[in-house]
Amino acid sequence: MLRFETAGESHGECLVAMLTGLPAGVPISLDTVNHELWRRQQGYGRGGRMKIEHDCAEIVSGVRHSHTIGSPVAIVIRNRDWQNWTEALPVEDAAGAEDKRKPVTRPRPGHADLAGAIKYDFADARYILERASARETAARVAIGAVAKALLNVFGIDIASHVIRIGRVRLERPVTWEEVAALRARNEILLGCVDADTELHMKEVVDEAYRTGDTVGGVFEVIAHGVPAGLGSHTTWDARLDGRLAQAVVSIQAVKGV
Amino acid sequence: MLRFETAGESHGECLVAMLTGLPAGVPISLDTVNHELWRRQQGYGRGGRMKIEHDCAEIVSGVRHSHTIGSPVAIVIRNRDWQNWTEALPVEDAAGAEDKRKPVTRPRPGHADLAGAIKYDFADARYILERASARETAARVAIGAVAKALLNVFGIDIASHVIRIGRVRLERPVTWEEVAALRARNEILLGCVDADTELHMKEVVDEAYRTGDTVGGVFEVIAHGVPAGLGSHTTWDARLDGRLAQAVVSIQAVKGV
Amino acid sequence: MLRFETAGESHGECLVAMLTGLPAGVPISLDTVNHELWRRQQGYGRGGRMKIEHDCAEIVSGVRHSHTIGSPVAIVIRNRDWQNWTEALPVEDAAGAEDKRKPVTRPRPGHADLAGAIKYDFADARYILERASARETAARVAIGAVAKALLNVFGIDIASHVIRIGRVRLERPVTWEEVAALRARNEILLGCVDADTELHMKEVVDEAYRTGDTVGGVFEVIAHGVPAGLGSHTTWDARLDGRLAQAVVSIQAVKGV
Amino acid sequence: MLRFETAGESHGECLVAMLTGLPAGVPISLDTVNHELWRRQQGYGRGGRMKIEHDCAEIVSGVRHSHTIGSPVAIVIRNRDWQNWTEALPVEDAAGAEDKRKPVTRPRPGHADLAGAIKYDFADARYILERASARETAARVAIGAVAKALLNVFGIDIASHVIRIGRVRLERPVTWEEVAALRARNEILLGCVDADTELHMKEVVDEAYRTGDTVGGVFEVIAHGVPAGLGSHTTWDARLDGRLAQAVVSIQAVKGV
Repeated sequence: MLRFETAGESHGECLVAMLTGLPAGVPISLDTVNHELWRRQQGYGRGGRMKIEHDCAEIVSGVRHSHTIGSPVAIVIRNRDWQNWTEALPVEDAAGAEDKRKPVTRPRPGHADLAGAIKYDFADARYILERASARETAARVAIGAVAKALLNVFGIDIASHVIRIGRVRLERPVTWEEVAALRARNEILLGCVDADTELHMKEVVDEAYRTGDTVGGVFEVIAHGVPAGLGSHTTWDARLDGRLAQAVVSIQAVKGV
Repeated sequence: MLRFETAGESHGECLVAMLTGLPAGVPISLDTVNHELWRRQQGYGRGGRMKIEHDCAEIVSGVRHSHTIGSPVAIVIRNRDWQNWTEALPVEDAAGAEDKRKPVTRPRPGHADLAGAIKYDFADARYILERASARETAARVAIGAVAKALLNVFGIDIASHVIRIGRVRLERPVTWEEVAALRARNEILLGCVDADTELHMKEVVDEAYRTGDTVGGVFEVIAHGVPAGLGSHTTWDARLDGRLAQAVVSIQAVKGV
Repeated sequence: MLRFETAGESHGECLVAMLTGLPAGVPISLDTVNHELWRRQQGYGRGGRMKIEHDCAEIVSGVRHSHTIGSPVAIVIRNRDWQNWTEALPVEDAAGAEDKRKPVTRPRPGHADLAGAIKYDFADARYILERASARETAARVAIGAVAKALLNVFGIDIASHVIRIGRVRLERPVTWEEVAALRARNEILLGCVDADTELHMKEVVDEAYRTGDTVGGVFEVIAHGVPAGLGSHTTWDARLDGRLAQAVVSIQAVKGV
Repeated sequence: MLRFETAGESHGECLVAMLTGLPAGVPISLDTVNHELWRRQQGYGRGGRMKIEHDCAEIVSGVRHSHTIGSPVAIVIRNRDWQNWTEALPVEDAAGAEDKRKPVTRPRPGHADLAGAIKYDFADARYILERASARETAARVAIGAVAKALLNVFGIDIASHVIRIGRVRLERPVTWEEVAALRARNEILLGCVDADTELHMKEVVDEAYRTGDTVGGVFEVIAHGVPAGLGSHTTWDARLDGRLAQAVVSIQAVKGV
């Protein structure tokens, strides 16, 4: 049974991802993991931080001589901005450090800020947003890159594309080949396989940007080459659709599946 | 930590539901559990079997003197039609029983029949559909009734209503009071709080029935009185929305959340 | 992944055992399950109840035509003495039933009575001992019989014998064949492969019986034909010795492994 | 629910420990964690490596301003000897690196070497012993130090002592105060509360050392201030003794509990 854990605060020293239960002998390429991290940081309308980060994975266990060895895979992704946060988010309290904090006292709507501060009894939502941050998904992307390497051994491939942003929707059917070709590109705009539709999507994002608003969207993930019979109908928690639904909805900002 | 299991084939002796991890002292009423089972069997356009079943829960453990005692709650729901299936689905093989089987060799689209038969290597999908059947949800309803009794202790209440069937959609906002009032009714048509909309929904069902088709829908579940901070943003699998997504999507015939 | 649950009170309607995660196609014999239940009820120095019980398993799901079908296996073991307890342990309170209770207000040393009553806040330990009872092991024995059927498919066999009771210890080495032969006997005294040692063990039990005391012992379980590499050294909770230790120590009255 | 994971090879870059499910607000001292790591490295008869290592924990997430913040606690313990192993255990294969490996082709009796090599299909047991190594317990000690900080909030304290080495056994009863005083010492010999007995234990270790043998022992762990009712009798896997048994037996070299 595969299981994974992530740890790390958005402005902390690093993110840590751990994947347990892999068999030995799966070929792992650090370049491939880093390419997935690069892909996560692309896309139209991303914030400025994305541009400076250039995440880089360090695999510190579980992979030797470019193959898994059966033991847990741990991956560290350092925060390049940590030196600017050592005083605001120190592990240990230092004398006089109280005034270096960067408190967040206006919870942002739609985020975990308020519910988290109530649950964990914080006067300041800083600790909540540090962990509820979308940056945590970098750890998942690194884990996902390793998991894809396992799937590849069985001829299974995964790719995704965007089918809707705001009111603009991709209206035509797509093929696996189109989505795979999209993934292979070196430039990522909005992740739509259709150039015209993507331009309309871009306009929607531009408009939201101008008005200081945000805009939702829909993406589709395609698993190619999956054998029939993964998952099981026999128990509620073995059903593949339910497990996928949890995994997808647990991603920050995802609201439906 | 609460956890539950269900067992039982659609035409087998009985369904069994087990709920583990309850505290002691939660008041449980067998009538309430059975009322929830009755509600499951209502609704417009249900098949004939629903009308003859009248499911009835037997709590065989975990509840004494009308209260939970901390040990696992096991509930048995007998199949009133079992006597007609003893030869088709016997636990043990009997001489000459081979010709009493009721094989299913035309897998139904959209069901687990084909994928399950491939996975478990059956020439006959009978064993698959016996378990993948919507009848399994009766066990979940019984467990859910006990779980609701726990929530009630904390002032939390759950109710649901239908907001769309086919192209007909409830266009106006609803209040908790409306949904709670809907639940209190002794007659269930299509579970919509708005009488006019419900009539239109009924027409859509009638039309599908005439043409031998089926029709999808959307329902909304409201949890009332939930304190802020249930679930947690700290790990992917503690997020409440992800857990709810899995639970809902794991229900037979649910395709999105 | 196999997992199991048990439910049921010692004097309740029945015990329920559920085993989830089995593959399809494992041959299951009800006689074999019942033979294991019979073995549990044998042995020197057992209480009177053991003699009247003659436990009998009803498999109500997961097995059809003498083979598993992949869905959860649920087994019901009825309590033949239930009619004498319906008023003391009713599921629902009845008017005037208060005086039919059989309260236990003197917690027995070495049992869960006191700790359980404190934890679950009961003035009466009845509910605790009903669940902490050794009778619960009947459900585990039934589950174990099904699990052994799975192991048998892989040529793995399990048997056990007693190597010490009180101060009397089996001093010589034993072979798998001796232990397997012991298991095949139709009469069970104290489960020791050596007749002389068993007689001495019997004397120790007789002596304890005379003085109203109890006496401990040591048994050995042998798994025969196990391939190298079950379990894994890679994580603390995949280690086979740790998992076996938990399983064995979780048996009522077992104090070490 | 608390859960933990460890990762890391004995001669790899570092060990990583992750503890998930802690509440916020638990005071954590890095000095205390490091003191526990120091204690692990003391004791009579330890190998030379223990003397050069001086493990040091870096908490990289989950603790800020000396308190837990609810998110997973990740701890990194660097391997001070890693620079000597970069060519023998590289994450990625480099040209010509094949001859820098340090293969282990004589599996050591009583270790995971042989079973692991069979399970994971390695011609070389190096990858097995790197993970099955006792060094992994350093990660558990760090996690344990954080877990103890949580217990301390509830007035629960944990300490241990050695009661037997080889044929030498502590024959007198001990008090909690003696064991707590033993823990407070700045020098650790063999962890026995009785000075005379400890000297005899030392002789047994010396003798084993002279003859190139090893010698087993028995230690006792005392949890002080534990409220009645932790764990539960209601299910096999909630029983505290079973959970403790698994945790203890999963420690490398522990053979019984």
